[in-house]
Amino acid sequence: MEIYRGHIVYSKNKDELVELTNGYIVVTDGIIQGVYKDLPKEYIDNKVIDFGNGVIIPAFSDLHVHAPQYPNRGIAMDKLLSNWLNDYTFPLESKYKDLEFAKQVYQAFVNDLIKHGTMHAVILGTIHNPATDFLMDLLENKGIQAYVGKVNMDKDSPSYLIETTDQSIKDTKAFIKKHINNKYAKAILTPRFAPTCSFKLLKELGKLAKEYNVPTQTHIVESLWEKEEAKKCFDGCRCDMQIYDETGLLNVQPFIAAHFIFPSEEDIKLLKDHNGYAVTCPDATTNVIAGIMPTGKLIDTGINLAIGSDISAGSYLGIYRQVASVVRLSKLKQFYEPENRTVHFNEAFYMATKSGGKIFDKVGSLELGYYFDALVIDGLEDSFMKLSPIQLVERFCYAGDSHHIVHRYLRGKEI
Amino acid sequence: MEIYRGHIVYSKNKDELVELTNGYIVVTDGIIQGVYKDLPKEYIDNKVIDFGNGVIIPAFSDLHVHAPQYPNRGIAMDKLLSNWLNDYTFPLESKYKDLEFAKQVYQAFVNDLIKHGTMHAVILGTIHNPATDFLMDLLENKGIQAYVGKVNMDKDSPSYLIETTDQSIKDTKAFIKKHINNKYAKAILTPRFAPTCSFKLLKELGKLAKEYNVPTQTHIVESLWEKEEAKKCFDGCRCDMQIYDETGLLNVQPFIAAHFIFPSEEDIKLLKDHNGYAVTCPDATTNVIAGIMPTGKLIDTGINLAIGSDISAGSYLGIYRQVASVVRLSKLKQFYEPENRTVHFNEAFYMATKSGGKIFDKVGSLELGYYFDALVIDGLEDSFMKLSPIQLVERFCYAGDSHHIVHRYLRGKEI
Repeated sequence: MEIYRGHIVYSKNKDELVELTNGYIVVTDGIIQGVYKDLPKEYIDNKVIDFGNGVIIPAFSDLHVHAPQYPNRGIAMDKLLSNWLNDYTFPLESKYKDLEFAKQVYQAFVNDLIKHGTMHAVILGTIHNPATDFLMDLLENKGIQAYVGKVNMDKDSPSYLIETTDQSIKDTKAFIKKHINNKYAKAILTPRFAPTCSFKLLKELGKLAKEYNVPTQTHIVESLWEKEEAKKCFDGCRCDMQIYDETGLLNVQPFIAAHFIFPSEEDIKLLKDHNGYAVTCPDATTNVIAGIMPTGKLIDTGINLAIGSDISAGSYLGIYRQVASVVRLSKLKQFYEPENRTVHFNEAFYMATKSGGKIFDKVGSLELGYYFDALVIDGLEDSFMKLSPIQLVERFCYAGDSHHIVHRYLRGKEI
Repeated sequence: MEIYRGHIVYSKNKDELVELTNGYIVVTDGIIQGVYKDLPKEYIDNKVIDFGNGVIIPAFSDLHVHAPQYPNRGIAMDKLLSNWLNDYTFPLESKYKDLEFAKQVYQAFVNDLIKHGTMHAVILGTIHNPATDFLMDLLENKGIQAYVGKVNMDKDSPSYLIETTDQSIKDTKAFIKKHINNKYAKAILTPRFAPTCSFKLLKELGKLAKEYNVPTQTHIVESLWEKEEAKKCFDGCRCDMQIYDETGLLNVQPFIAAHFIFPSEEDIKLLKDHNGYAVTCPDATTNVIAGIMPTGKLIDTGINLAIGSDISAGSYLGIYRQVASVVRLSKLKQFYEPENRTVHFNEAFYMATKSGGKIFDKVGSLELGYYFDALVIDGLEDSFMKLSPIQLVERFCYAGDSHHIVHRYLRGKEI
């Protein structure tokens, strides 16, 4: 049993951000047994690990990140989407046919993910099985809860980064089977997005989803162009989400819809009815794509929401900065489209922790029964003005960096 | 004489970002004598300070920052502008009547400014002379080139943070005279903005500007509300900038127009004709104000442009992050208002260094004759993919933090 003392901040629900000043968390076998304002008498003789003015918060969940694009983070950010894809992103992704290159990048990527306090993630690989297998094994061995996808793309892709439909299916099946007994890092189907996947491929993926009970991640209505392209998938296609409905890919949870910037009413209904997740990647959608998710509206529909770093369209791996960006961009969205509303800090923090964490096993909060997947943040307070624990967390999201994370716990073990 | 070796990146002009891989900078008495690809023979026997893979860049200039708001950085960021002002900002500013409080904050503020690589700044204080005098003395003693303003506000302000017109003028005059012989930190007139200044006050400030040759900073068309309020300043007032023209405040350079989000053609013409500066504070204008400067358009008019952190409407003191935000927000502006264009990284970096630096003495570039006010950034490269020096600087702006600044030089002295 371990007992931790410090300020404590976690989301109970989207509206309620709980704060305890100098509280206690009791953990046994990596699982939280209780969170207390005052330490119960029964524990009074136990050793207490005291974080002083540090704030204990849940570790973050990143629900959309391209691991192979990690080498391009923070470069070419003033390019057009088409240039960024064709001159930077696709050429880089093609390098993952070289397993040795992949090993170097993926090790650095996973270390950096942890450094930034992200302990749970939904990750896109590339079309290459050996590289993506390596990434999966790495996460599994570290005990990081993740969904990892071997990417599918069999049309309208560069000649050096494309598969045949048959090879794509064959490789996907091999990928699923190879990792089927994993405990932490699991396979997820990853059709890149409608414009690069034939309807035949998507239907075959739908069969795999059913046969192996594997969920799906993809990009949904990420741009006005993509929204229109998606409709060319099959005759009579009305919207992007319908494609995944028709092919059976919505039937296994969680369905991860990255970006979701321009959803139609039907897109929203389909995602909600299948308990799917809309994942906003605010910096990414301003860096290389143009548009802002109608986050406030979507929150009010009751749909599941989460946040992604979307490296390397996004430039920063820390989800905490994206929490700030979600709030910030919601204000701009409201300015330009007044039917939208401001997303509040507690809502954005909930998206990054408890809401996104729901697709994994018992993570994202600091309540009874959750794993102690947690961070201690410190060095954010001033001597001249007292801030509340919640204000310290807000400051961390707006003005912090990875150096403010002074401890990282994964299922109760410091890493 | 000191000779520094490392990668070198600086702006020659808005379009040309110079990069040297493993170049040399020769500095004598704090002034750059030359920048070389290969070390000239005459220096071959001199000791060279080698920064390895570090990149030498000019120190940043922050042209709009509220020092007294430093304790509020990164909090209350999801509030409305009116709540943020009345519940957080004004109450905090009123505390600077307490000189001891001011001393603590301003020392921390200046240290943090330097930590983030900002060596030149245009700073707003509060209405309180002793506190603002302290800030001025602190900067002067550290040798930081700055303009510092005692704020003027004599109407439509909270009862606990307002001056009479006479007191405001008297205190401003005393402030100017007290610091008139300063070498580095100089007085700047600081009418808060048109809505909180009577026309009489502004006219009196115009007289002081002329008498003491003191320039002016203020907020210009920072919101649609303010744009309209400004027109109530005097009968027949057509635009915000006209107020400062009528009162003679445009006649001393540099005139610093913070935000400049909604300028009319006349605002632009007046600012340009008086060689003034439009200062964008991108995070700030999305955090608490709504709107994006038409930066691309303004660049194309040839107007002077610079960047401000605008603490605490802005949440982060590092101007490098704002360089990224300028690019990012220009893409959103273009999305919503397609007559605007993307601002490129070289343009935003120029704004943050050479352009903003022009209002000070010989800073903002690494060319011959400039002070060696410089930073060395490091720890941004990966082992698995080579980046150019410019790409490393771009990554620093998008994904870096103050820990990537490994050396800081002020007129050739490491600080």
